[in-house]
Amino acid sequence: MFSQSFNQRIKFAYRALDQKTKPPGSLGEIEQIAAQISATQNTLTPDVSQARALIFAADHGVVAEGVSAYPQEVTRQMLLNFATGGAAVNALCNANNVDLQVINTGVIGEPVDGAEHCKIADGTANFALEPAMTAEQLHRALSIGRSAVEKAAAQNITLLAIGEMGIGNTSSAAAITSALCNASVEQTVGRGTGLDDQGLAHKQQIITQSLQLHKDRTPDQVLRCVGGFEIAAMCGAMLAAPAHKMTLVLDGYIVTAAALVAVAMHSDVRNHLIFAHQSAEPGHAIALQHLQARPLLTLNLRLGEGSGAVLAIPLIRSAVAILREMATFEDAGVERKNS
Amino acid sequence: MFSQSFNQRIKFAYRALDQKTKPPGSLGEIEQIAAQISATQNTLTPDVSQARALIFAADHGVVAEGVSAYPQEVTRQMLLNFATGGAAVNALCNANNVDLQVINTGVIGEPVDGAEHCKIADGTANFALEPAMTAEQLHRALSIGRSAVEKAAAQNITLLAIGEMGIGNTSSAAAITSALCNASVEQTVGRGTGLDDQGLAHKQQIITQSLQLHKDRTPDQVLRCVGGFEIAAMCGAMLAAPAHKMTLVLDGYIVTAAALVAVAMHSDVRNHLIFAHQSAEPGHAIALQHLQARPLLTLNLRLGEGSGAVLAIPLIRSAVAILREMATFEDAGVERKNS
Repeated sequence: MFSQSFNQRIKFAYRALDQKTKPPGSLGEIEQIAAQISATQNTLTPDVSQARALIFAADHGVVAEGVSAYPQEVTRQMLLNFATGGAAVNALCNANNVDLQVINTGVIGEPVDGAEHCKIADGTANFALEPAMTAEQLHRALSIGRSAVEKAAAQNITLLAIGEMGIGNTSSAAAITSALCNASVEQTVGRGTGLDDQGLAHKQQIITQSLQLHKDRTPDQVLRCVGGFEIAAMCGAMLAAPAHKMTLVLDGYIVTAAALVAVAMHSDVRNHLIFAHQSAEPGHAIALQHLQARPLLTLNLRLGEGSGAVLAIPLIRSAVAILREMATFEDAGVERKNS
Repeated sequence: MFSQSFNQRIKFAYRALDQKTKPPGSLGEIEQIAAQISATQNTLTPDVSQARALIFAADHGVVAEGVSAYPQEVTRQMLLNFATGGAAVNALCNANNVDLQVINTGVIGEPVDGAEHCKIADGTANFALEPAMTAEQLHRALSIGRSAVEKAAAQNITLLAIGEMGIGNTSSAAAITSALCNASVEQTVGRGTGLDDQGLAHKQQIITQSLQLHKDRTPDQVLRCVGGFEIAAMCGAMLAAPAHKMTLVLDGYIVTAAALVAVAMHSDVRNHLIFAHQSAEPGHAIALQHLQARPLLTLNLRLGEGSGAVLAIPLIRSAVAILREMATFEDAGVERKNS
């Protein structure tokens, strides 16, 4: 029914929305989401009833530099918490009818029951001293994300919330954002989950030093040298979205950093991304601007673990319901605006 | 279990939230909503599973002055559209598991099947020439809203989305906001659902003239002279909230204008209100500021009919789920922040 161009499909969806019994455009960004998903699924009756949250977890060698307010053990403790259902993302998935899959891409320690065990290594190397990953590790991490999307698509899931857990990973996000958006560390390094002034200055210094060490600014090398396993896996998931007509709703700063890499690798990925929320981390605004993204929510969230992405899912389902279910002016016998 | 003060109950809820396995405050405004509803329901396990949207509809005599881009008949046509399930609010209620009750407080014409018929008159009087309502009509309108809350409470509903439909009612909202916030018509009068520059200037002139005619600035007299039946009914609903431990989530500018009146009458009402979204109408920001309210959503909505309020309901349910379901640090064996 549609032509082949994504932008033409978007226009087609807007024409359908303008027939609905409401002033044109009066549902604002809800209509933009409806049009985007219509274009992605190539239908005026898209379906996002089956949604899943993919939470990728890993540890980070750079934590040795003292860049986080929380001890590294918390990554694994939170993985256990996800698996036993006690974390924020569990409560949010339950409340919003979203399936949850937790994927361990590199958390230090034994496998955790209830988390898919795809561990590449016991955390990345310390990127303040050496590249975070080898080329082979990067390849494996990308594949983990790609496989998760393929599996979801095979199960008729059409909407994925993408989140992460990894003590220290705002350091990776800041380094990636500085490298790919050409932004200073003062703009991209924030307090993470609770650094004080001294901790912030130290973290900025570590990121500056790391970016001096790793000079290659090609997206895959930035990801390999200063990224993390979970960040690379999320990037792999994004790269798989176009082939599977999948829509991904992205959580905060760390996920958006993964998107910077994925979109730099393949610009078509951008059409498949919805940005859930504006994080309190200052670098997130830089990354969003670079991707010309305006997030759906601004609730001062700074938790991660996919919480903001899951919170945005009902808005996305609502957007699709508007396109699918509303009557047209003709159907309902409602008059249009005075001319 | 709680002390009697609302603020003490709020603090008690925050203490409970700070035991949950997340950095303190990291769910931002979601935590504020959880604390507010906990304090309202006087429990750490509040329940908002049963939610209803109340849409109050009425016609407005001031439409005779040419203040709306849509013909007056659209109020009744939209009432029919709500009743047959074709409007935006129907799709949004279906998508978000929210019951819908449409209440006709004064729409011109015959009763509409599927809308509760509480018609006071065939629209208000033209407030550019005379008071919109008599004192008796105001009393009846307030009672309609109060009764709707009582009925919902008796049905174990604990969360109400409040919305409206009434061609011309942004004129009432602007007049009320100017009167109660001491704001100029340039600040409070917007384009409604689609006025051009000339239409905007004309609307501003009509509101200015009306405010010169009706000089009494007591909240009930402002409501009577420049309000509408549906606005007064919403005000009545808000006034009934404290007695029934009800939380009301308010849609855009017109509903917020009703809140200006209700809070001016009884300040306790404010604790029961959640503001769903920041409308594109400029006066809405003035009214929100006056009520020290920061809305949950900023999606450039300008439809009305409760659409923004219903979109906010999953966020409110999510907030409650965080308080009810998340594990504490003790439960989950997760370490806290490094000291």
